[in-house]
Amino acid sequence: MPRYQATLLIELKEGILDPQGRAVEGVLRDLGHPVESVRVGKVLEVVFQEENLLKAEEKAKVLGQTLANPVMETWTLEALKELP
Amino acid sequence: MPRYQATLLIELKEGILDPQGRAVEGVLRDLGHPVESVRVGKVLEVVFQEENLLKAEEKAKVLGQTLANPVMETWTLEALKELP
Repeated sequence: MPRYQATLLIELKEGILDPQGRAVEGVLRDLGHPVESVRVGKVLEVVFQEENLLKAEEKAKVLGQTLANPVMETWTLEALKELP
Repeated sequence: MPRYQATLLIELKEGILDPQGRAVEGVLRDLGHPVESVRVGKVLEVVFQEENLLKAEEKAKVLGQTLANPVMETWTLEALKELP
């Protein structure tokens, strides 16, 4: 079966306080690179086997729904590619 | 000045042990969604002002170099867009 790699982004919803992002903002300001805001999320690179690209996309969506907390987070399937 | 949003991915280099990814693998297996591997990284959504897209790209690269640990991590500028 072909192998696929899905890149899933899991980010905090708008309005959810992000202390880690605030900390990064402070570090960047102290280093002389002031920015307006930073939000920190997770990126997951998941490798799995599936019959074809269509089924791989379905599986990647199931993974996103499974791994994100629907109350506080949103997920995006950023990329899906077949591995050689 | 226009505002830009940069999406930076910061991921562990190949060969660096990723216990968080291993834990996610285990959770997915227990939930009936077995996968071959999971690598967990960070995604940073950074908003800043800059004169134009070219300078914004330069700034985003500086941010990537600043925020990633060159010994253990790689960074990618996944997206850069002007905000309305």
